[in-house]
Amino acid sequence: MVTLNDIAVRLGISKSTVSKGLSNASDVSEELRKKIIETAAEMGYSGRRTQKRLCILVENMGYKEPNQFGYELISGFVQRAKLEGWTVDVVPLDKERQKDMTYSDFMTQGGYQGAFLLGFSLLDPWMEEFKTAQIPTVLYDNYIKENPFIASVGCDNDGGLKAAVKHLYGLGHRRIGLLSGPLDSYIVKERYNAYLGALEECGLPVDEDLIGLGYFVAESTRQNLPKLIEKGATAILCADDSRAVAAYTECHDRSLRIPGDVSIVGFDDLPIAAYMNPALTTVRQDRPALGKCGYYALQCLLSGMDIHSIVLRAPLVVRGSTGPAAVRPEKSAEEASHGGGK
Amino acid sequence: MVTLNDIAVRLGISKSTVSKGLSNASDVSEELRKKIIETAAEMGYSGRRTQKRLCILVENMGYKEPNQFGYELISGFVQRAKLEGWTVDVVPLDKERQKDMTYSDFMTQGGYQGAFLLGFSLLDPWMEEFKTAQIPTVLYDNYIKENPFIASVGCDNDGGLKAAVKHLYGLGHRRIGLLSGPLDSYIVKERYNAYLGALEECGLPVDEDLIGLGYFVAESTRQNLPKLIEKGATAILCADDSRAVAAYTECHDRSLRIPGDVSIVGFDDLPIAAYMNPALTTVRQDRPALGKCGYYALQCLLSGMDIHSIVLRAPLVVRGSTGPAAVRPEKSAEEASHGGGK
Repeated sequence: MVTLNDIAVRLGISKSTVSKGLSNASDVSEELRKKIIETAAEMGYSGRRTQKRLCILVENMGYKEPNQFGYELISGFVQRAKLEGWTVDVVPLDKERQKDMTYSDFMTQGGYQGAFLLGFSLLDPWMEEFKTAQIPTVLYDNYIKENPFIASVGCDNDGGLKAAVKHLYGLGHRRIGLLSGPLDSYIVKERYNAYLGALEECGLPVDEDLIGLGYFVAESTRQNLPKLIEKGATAILCADDSRAVAAYTECHDRSLRIPGDVSIVGFDDLPIAAYMNPALTTVRQDRPALGKCGYYALQCLLSGMDIHSIVLRAPLVVRGSTGPAAVRPEKSAEEASHGGGK
Repeated sequence: MVTLNDIAVRLGISKSTVSKGLSNASDVSEELRKKIIETAAEMGYSGRRTQKRLCILVENMGYKEPNQFGYELISGFVQRAKLEGWTVDVVPLDKERQKDMTYSDFMTQGGYQGAFLLGFSLLDPWMEEFKTAQIPTVLYDNYIKENPFIASVGCDNDGGLKAAVKHLYGLGHRRIGLLSGPLDSYIVKERYNAYLGALEECGLPVDEDLIGLGYFVAESTRQNLPKLIEKGATAILCADDSRAVAAYTECHDRSLRIPGDVSIVGFDDLPIAAYMNPALTTVRQDRPALGKCGYYALQCLLSGMDIHSIVLRAPLVVRGSTGPAAVRPEKSAEEASHGGGK
């Protein structure tokens, strides 16, 4: 079977240039591209293109177990793609691999016609390349503004978080805290801004003492949750259900009753949410539907439709972890800052 | 054939209550609904439901000629819907008809399972009902925030208008006018705000003298275009291509050269845009793709997927109607307000 390397040797150019020429990259001259394509055809190169291959690239996200966020997202996508004859590879990724190889090269060498990308952060090496890459690509919860080859799918984070804050406000909560990851991903930033916007809509002031950010879920929840309670939070929004699970553990260790002492709200509605004790009030992301829409968006790009984004609703699912705001004695700022504990 | 009326007579209730009971409207008691459904089944009522019917409701938009905005929007939708066995009725609508009948009754009586709505304005009588209607409905260029039965499709108006303003800015234009309809529709408002945002991004001040709004295209263009030119506009953004056509006429009547004296940009990329003289620089709305995405969104709603919106890109198509900014002698505000002509 003829390889990229065979074509490279014949033309006296690098394998990566051959790959670029075949993938329509913009930094290969029209003349050279023509030569590469003609030579490839002459030598009988078929690539793996003929196989109808897509890939799902996953980073910063569990997906192997049904209880992990990526599981149904992937199964929704794959289910639709298989119906239309696609082979789909699921490839875990990390920053190192992105440094070793460009996105275009990765895609060309894998023979992939398009990709669905999950869990990328704004700091990822390939994010820069996405601004110009000419490969049909759909991002979950990330947006690339001006590249027509890239589309996005995600949930209405704004609507979901606003519904959560309004629900808490309706229960009498006026000190609503936030536990979240650091602001280095598009989605975390968006939820953070939605939290600020929702407070504003309810006429509540933003208090930085009620916000706890940290990358490592268990560790940062352990550090931040007691601080938020100290500062008078009667309810805590968790930017994802894993943080809500960690918050339950911390509350249990401190004998704080949910929702008697503190109401907890999650985000995602992972399968476990309904089985927690008490069952978790959370914002639902319909992951199978997100996967299906991801495939539809990719199909649009592959057929030349200029799709920009698909957004699903993110409804609030009210369960047992939220209740009327606890009445606590008012503390002076000074007292609180000296950690006069509960 | 058994009709709604036959069931109504048998049960001694109104036809509209029967219709509500069969369409799961929320204002019919569970008990009554059950009775209606059982009676309908007993009498062999099949409705028109079994026929898989959808409808496209059109207001404020031409759609019968290939050169009108709605034509391809509808054909894109119908093409996809027919592939999956749907019958699609296209129904022109006006405010009077909306006052005569509720949306729910209209849909039930037509036997429609879902609808695609084009050209509705924020003042339309049914807009209020859309907040609570329990009928799968997709709106083109309108948004209903909290009803999970309603989804939206549209273009990235913001991105499109920003690209247009940046293009003009790059050609040296600093006085960029806007001709648009009145701000009583979601889409007109959005484009208006995008225009303001784009000026801001380019560091240009907003000057109300450079904005001309009016419902009737030809008339308001005749009134407003000369005013904008008076006030120093070297380029004019038209919120739709029909206004651009009217602007060409006005420029011709006033011996203003396009783009020598004034650059003109449209929005929509109607088929005629490429054949105007000079060919019109405009923001493209891919209407067949919008129609296809409208059908996809409706399909999602019909299958219980909580879709919120699908947005397509709106790329700028640069043609002959834009060029370097004309150099005009600066005028004092006073002089201009006295209409000291060109």
